[in-house]
Amino acid sequence: MALPRLLVRALHRAAAAAAPSAPDFNSFVPRTNTCGELRSAHVGQKVTLYGWVQYQRQGLFLVLRDFQGLTQVIIPQDEAHSHVRELLSGAPLESVLRVTGTVSPRPLGQENPKMPTGDIEVKAETAEILNSCKKLPFEIKDFIKKSEALRMQYRYLDLRSSRLQSALRLRSRLVMSMRHYLCNLHGFVDVETPTLFKRTPGGAKEFLVPSREPGKFYSLPQSPQQFKQLLMVGGLDRYFQVARCYRDEGSRPDRQPEFTQIDIEMSFVDQAGIQRLIEGLLQHSWPEERGSIMTPFPSMTYKEALAEYGTDKPDTRFGMKIVDVSDVLRRSNVHFVQNALTYPHGSIRAICIPQGVRYLTNKDLESLKESAKSQFNQEIMEIIHRPDGSLKSLLTKFLGEKEKSELIQALNMQEGDVVLLAAGEHEQVVRSQHYDLVLNGNEVGGGSIRIHSAEQQRFVLEKVLKEDSEVLSHLIEALELGAPPHGGIALGLDRLISLIVDAPSIRDVIAFPKSFRGRDLMGNAPDYVTPEELEPYHIQVSWPLEEKEAKKN
Amino acid sequence: MALPRLLVRALHRAAAAAAPSAPDFNSFVPRTNTCGELRSAHVGQKVTLYGWVQYQRQGLFLVLRDFQGLTQVIIPQDEAHSHVRELLSGAPLESVLRVTGTVSPRPLGQENPKMPTGDIEVKAETAEILNSCKKLPFEIKDFIKKSEALRMQYRYLDLRSSRLQSALRLRSRLVMSMRHYLCNLHGFVDVETPTLFKRTPGGAKEFLVPSREPGKFYSLPQSPQQFKQLLMVGGLDRYFQVARCYRDEGSRPDRQPEFTQIDIEMSFVDQAGIQRLIEGLLQHSWPEERGSIMTPFPSMTYKEALAEYGTDKPDTRFGMKIVDVSDVLRRSNVHFVQNALTYPHGSIRAICIPQGVRYLTNKDLESLKESAKSQFNQEIMEIIHRPDGSLKSLLTKFLGEKEKSELIQALNMQEGDVVLLAAGEHEQVVRSQHYDLVLNGNEVGGGSIRIHSAEQQRFVLEKVLKEDSEVLSHLIEALELGAPPHGGIALGLDRLISLIVDAPSIRDVIAFPKSFRGRDLMGNAPDYVTPEELEPYHIQVSWPLEEKEAKKN
Repeated sequence: MALPRLLVRALHRAAAAAAPSAPDFNSFVPRTNTCGELRSAHVGQKVTLYGWVQYQRQGLFLVLRDFQGLTQVIIPQDEAHSHVRELLSGAPLESVLRVTGTVSPRPLGQENPKMPTGDIEVKAETAEILNSCKKLPFEIKDFIKKSEALRMQYRYLDLRSSRLQSALRLRSRLVMSMRHYLCNLHGFVDVETPTLFKRTPGGAKEFLVPSREPGKFYSLPQSPQQFKQLLMVGGLDRYFQVARCYRDEGSRPDRQPEFTQIDIEMSFVDQAGIQRLIEGLLQHSWPEERGSIMTPFPSMTYKEALAEYGTDKPDTRFGMKIVDVSDVLRRSNVHFVQNALTYPHGSIRAICIPQGVRYLTNKDLESLKESAKSQFNQEIMEIIHRPDGSLKSLLTKFLGEKEKSELIQALNMQEGDVVLLAAGEHEQVVRSQHYDLVLNGNEVGGGSIRIHSAEQQRFVLEKVLKEDSEVLSHLIEALELGAPPHGGIALGLDRLISLIVDAPSIRDVIAFPKSFRGRDLMGNAPDYVTPEELEPYHIQVSWPLEEKEAKKN
Repeated sequence: MALPRLLVRALHRAAAAAAPSAPDFNSFVPRTNTCGELRSAHVGQKVTLYGWVQYQRQGLFLVLRDFQGLTQVIIPQDEAHSHVRELLSGAPLESVLRVTGTVSPRPLGQENPKMPTGDIEVKAETAEILNSCKKLPFEIKDFIKKSEALRMQYRYLDLRSSRLQSALRLRSRLVMSMRHYLCNLHGFVDVETPTLFKRTPGGAKEFLVPSREPGKFYSLPQSPQQFKQLLMVGGLDRYFQVARCYRDEGSRPDRQPEFTQIDIEMSFVDQAGIQRLIEGLLQHSWPEERGSIMTPFPSMTYKEALAEYGTDKPDTRFGMKIVDVSDVLRRSNVHFVQNALTYPHGSIRAICIPQGVRYLTNKDLESLKESAKSQFNQEIMEIIHRPDGSLKSLLTKFLGEKEKSELIQALNMQEGDVVLLAAGEHEQVVRSQHYDLVLNGNEVGGGSIRIHSAEQQRFVLEKVLKEDSEVLSHLIEALELGAPPHGGIALGLDRLISLIVDAPSIRDVIAFPKSFRGRDLMGNAPDYVTPEELEPYHIQVSWPLEEKEAKKN
């Protein structure tokens, strides 16, 4: 008995896997179709739709909306259906309806090619108002223009927009595809790790959670770092988790107190292995509608990134590499150049802005120079390649013709370009096996090959980071008891999705984000609690003086 | 250019989906095989294995272990390999090794049919100790016998056991399969909801998280209940999440302060729809090695469950239904029977324990009666069906032969059975559209068709639950602005997995569980923090008096 049943199930599964058809959105519910689904091929079918009233016109027709699209519903005008007419003509916008009717072709010339369901309409036969909508605080179509605070207060209304619907659905699909790649194709184990843990050494920015033991607190970790390493010590071999992480940074624009990372760790891997894994993961899960991505990803060392782009998160789309022009200027008689070159790591570097004369105003240049001065104590000098071919700069009088032409060649200057030049000493780099994933100038991931020697870990903690290694004694002891070499990476999911859907903020790819002050504007969190509620946790509020006074009066 | 590339990718994906082969555990790393993989077919191949030293015997051979199994490694004895011999003979147990060698058949008669790799051995050629293991605090093979506290302190060692490895891997696979069913087959959207929210009305048992605003606290929710309903109001249609939930119950055996639920919500669904969904979900994801499950699941009303099993979480495997014997005894002259039957909902109920005379001692019966008396103020009377066919009971002298034989028939009593009988009034039930999923007497899920009318929700909050509806004003307002009818369910994942793998506790299916006092015994959480760390959160510890005194002295 058991074998045939198992076989049948296996065959079913194989068949299901072989035909990755679209999901069935109509299972378990009484609707026959979604509002985005009907086409000419459905003409003549009797259908039942559920959705929201998007629009209604003079008792003649209305547009019904759900997550998949819009369908035009014709309101019956005959006496026999007067009840349906009354109901549909009177339903307030954004009310929730059930409509049953027959799919018909739209009259010739009235098709709407811009609408996926624009070839058909549904002639309503019965209808029901499932929930009538009260007057909205504003018109839904104007919603996007409202302040973000108002949209966050009525987040559930904003969620009805196609913008948020498609961002959240893309996020769900992409994560599912990542899981498939990691679990099904490469044997990673999805392991949940605790979020109630204890303070990390040096872990400022960690939220505290009072416990019922007087004076003792849990802490919400910034990442599952310790746990994923301990899983490797525990022989899990390949771990991943779509992990909720917490960071209390107070008010920071475009940061969230809780965020999500794709957290990955592997035993016996090196840096090249992690790189191949991430390339494969992103290539596999990248949404088709956003084009494809090429592997291997270009990679550069930290030193190269700083030397050529002046940042560890370069946006390589812009070109504009930094060029070392020390050799060109070495023999010139410019004081600040000579001065910089006396230092062991002194150099003169320049960046050429193509057609800068068209894009940069004098004011731009002044503000650039000022911030270089105030933030980095750095003098910036500009060289403008005039349309007549000559160079305009405070420097030119110190340069011979040979040096000028060498400079033009080194920077590949064209007429109209502006060069910015600076002199100074560059810093030496503290080397570790750390790597970052950078997408168009945004850091979306970072990781390292970890230290698996207890001795080395103790050294780094005590001598390099100057931390008390006692707090991490359990981790150090674990490294002594058969820890395999291991490494991993974490991708910032919110940032990654926001870049893929081209959203201005990570708040646009999170269902219920907090304001930049860390507030939930819909539910009004955080909120006051009573002293009685604090009692089991042995804490009390230390009210700032002015509030104490205010309470007194 | 774009089209062919898309086509190639689509074909690749279809091919990958059509052949759901085993995951590739050796991608991205330098090993050629895992320690559980080699068979006779591999004989002659040169392989590289990574793993832990499980066992080593007299410098002749050792057993290497990883997550997939064990491989016997032959230590070379010739002079040319003296370095390898020294290294492998000297590696402490649980050290991490790389071994490269050639797969050979085991000598005739030395095959081990109990070991999947028992037909082969690997003749080591090169080897490396990647991390030497210090002396373990106890022998790994005795680990399971140690106290749970010690095993939790060294959780990463316990994780190396096949018991925990297989539980965590089954959990990962089962959740993945649930995701496939929900996302890919039925169009559910995986949406992450916040865990930093605000206190639920009546929400005792919620952990608090102090914020940087004086006196204001976040709260860690016990479930995403509000958010999933708001997602339905937001038109998400079908939501699910493998959601981390929090509950501060102080010390409770086999509960965890943080736990995981499969959280599901759908629009336009009724109770039967949710039931079909859950049946399909569990049937699809049930591990094949645990047999298959039949649908539809048997279902009964709350009233039926209480009437027949005396609990809302019946374990129907045991049979032993409760039988109403009021009619049989109605005319008997027993005082407590007559007394109970005067009440409007009074009845006499009995349960028959098959072969009770063999299983129940007098002491058992006494303790049963005592707890019925002390906990429920209920008299229990026993009737024993003697092997000679007669009934032994304090009742029998009040019963005629007809009543005796009717009783035997009603309860289907066999010789050797024991019947327990009680009289009283049964409670009326408050009805709502709530349902539970019960597996072998354990509640593993619960849900309801929600209230989608603002008016009704306000009524229930204020009149039934006696709560201040102001705290949920955002939810009530949402119900006024186009909320669809909706319902859902949540499955307790930890409990479900523990039942599937037959683990005595949910701690056996959680990677890093807390003790029943809510402590992490490995990392020592919760822990003390400095007053300076509390300052940004405007709280201070209220030390209990005796600790204050202790600190003074």
